[in-house]
Amino acid sequence: MSGTLFNNVAVIGVGLLGGSLALALKEKKLCGRVTGIGRSQTRLDEAKRMGAIDKATTRLSSGIADADLIVICTPVQHIISVLPDVVRHARAGALITEVGSTKTGIVRTGEAVAARSRAFFVGSHPMAGTEKIGVQYAQPDLFKGANCFVTKTPATNMSAFVRVCDLWRALDMRIVISRPERHDRLVALVSHLPHLVSVALVNAIDGFQEDKNLIKGIIGNGFRDTTRIAHGNAAMWEEISAENTDEIGATHAAFNKALEEIMTAASSDKRKLKTLFEAASNYREFFDE
Amino acid sequence: MSGTLFNNVAVIGVGLLGGSLALALKEKKLCGRVTGIGRSQTRLDEAKRMGAIDKATTRLSSGIADADLIVICTPVQHIISVLPDVVRHARAGALITEVGSTKTGIVRTGEAVAARSRAFFVGSHPMAGTEKIGVQYAQPDLFKGANCFVTKTPATNMSAFVRVCDLWRALDMRIVISRPERHDRLVALVSHLPHLVSVALVNAIDGFQEDKNLIKGIIGNGFRDTTRIAHGNAAMWEEISAENTDEIGATHAAFNKALEEIMTAASSDKRKLKTLFEAASNYREFFDE
Repeated sequence: MSGTLFNNVAVIGVGLLGGSLALALKEKKLCGRVTGIGRSQTRLDEAKRMGAIDKATTRLSSGIADADLIVICTPVQHIISVLPDVVRHARAGALITEVGSTKTGIVRTGEAVAARSRAFFVGSHPMAGTEKIGVQYAQPDLFKGANCFVTKTPATNMSAFVRVCDLWRALDMRIVISRPERHDRLVALVSHLPHLVSVALVNAIDGFQEDKNLIKGIIGNGFRDTTRIAHGNAAMWEEISAENTDEIGATHAAFNKALEEIMTAASSDKRKLKTLFEAASNYREFFDE
Repeated sequence: MSGTLFNNVAVIGVGLLGGSLALALKEKKLCGRVTGIGRSQTRLDEAKRMGAIDKATTRLSSGIADADLIVICTPVQHIISVLPDVVRHARAGALITEVGSTKTGIVRTGEAVAARSRAFFVGSHPMAGTEKIGVQYAQPDLFKGANCFVTKTPATNMSAFVRVCDLWRALDMRIVISRPERHDRLVALVSHLPHLVSVALVNAIDGFQEDKNLIKGIIGNGFRDTTRIAHGNAAMWEEISAENTDEIGATHAAFNKALEEIMTAASSDKRKLKTLFEAASNYREFFDE
């Protein structure tokens, strides 16, 4: 993919994701001008200094007024709350997308407000990012080779949908087309549940108040691997947990059942335990190939 | 540490651990002769060919008759069942230890049968090993730098205890002195619970019967890290689970409570969720230093 896809792009929230997106668009010459919109002038100045954005403003309305592509790169709750304003100030025919890591609530809001306007909304979730926060860690190849969900519902405008797919494909992402609800189920399974389980594992161990230095001396890969992700941006996880409560609840129930089954088999049914271990081993092996 | 510690050493079960122990004893010239005792003549021949053992036999009684150190390197349940025979055939003054990964049941049995004999029993748990099984993977530096639990109870003979510590120290291990019950609590926390949780996570995800190729495309470090250990020797884990049921049960209960607390906070108490995430992050960070 090459050539200009958009004239004026507005990026709302110029942090790691927004900054990387802007850098990639510039580097690949995929658009004319990029305007960065944010709350902090200092961070916007930094983004400009890095060459990620051409213009910077803290005013949403003027920042997006002439954009034919608007990408909202802020936290999930903020995306939902800002969408009505974005749609209101967007020009006719503008394409609006975002990078939220849950989709059902965002897409419901986005499609509802866009339906009453002349702008178009399509949800995205580029599965890229590091633990770093801030535009200073932005890099143009952040998205390269990773997967990007693009949502599709009965209300989705097909031409807008294709253009959003083109955007992420131009950044060398692989597109996964999904209903918002299915996306939320899948990320609950592969991301949210493992994360919350990892945090719970650490807190449970912590609760026994054993000598930390002793524990440090005896831990092996089991503890290290399962709890490696038990940190990170608490605020982001608060938002994700709050937004994806239903799906996380469903995966939590399934997990409790699976663990209970293993514990019961461990104490009373060796053959069953062997079956459960082998099933896990076989399933997990597929992802190492 | 240098110089001969023992004249004749008998290793019961010449697999990865037994074979590595024998190789290390030979390489460091810590003993005179090593006799390997096992069920399979083929595997014993392989151990002999590798230079791990000098003599091989499938007969326990003759294999340990003249040993001043006997190390049982078989699975946990077998250790418990063979201990009475080992004590019965051991010469007066012989030192008996083993490498079982649970300690309460083994040490209770070992100390009880040794008390009625002229042999001495001390429990060990060298925290070394890989996922490989079999003497062909044995290596003399397997134990180097790792921790080794040595058990101490009111019934432990102090001279025997010191000699067992000397043995593992001579293999460059760090000694952790512990009551058997405390050992079992600690390994339940840092090893058994994480392992069973990891297996449950995989089985729960498997249960949703989502497209595996799609899941493979969207998984990140969260899923990969938390489920990496969800495989391995089902038979060994069956034994561990069965032997350490009480402690695993206690850690399971604590884990359930911790996960429930996170789920509840996620849906209704942001401040609490933040506290729980931060606690986990702080605790876990200590183990990265």
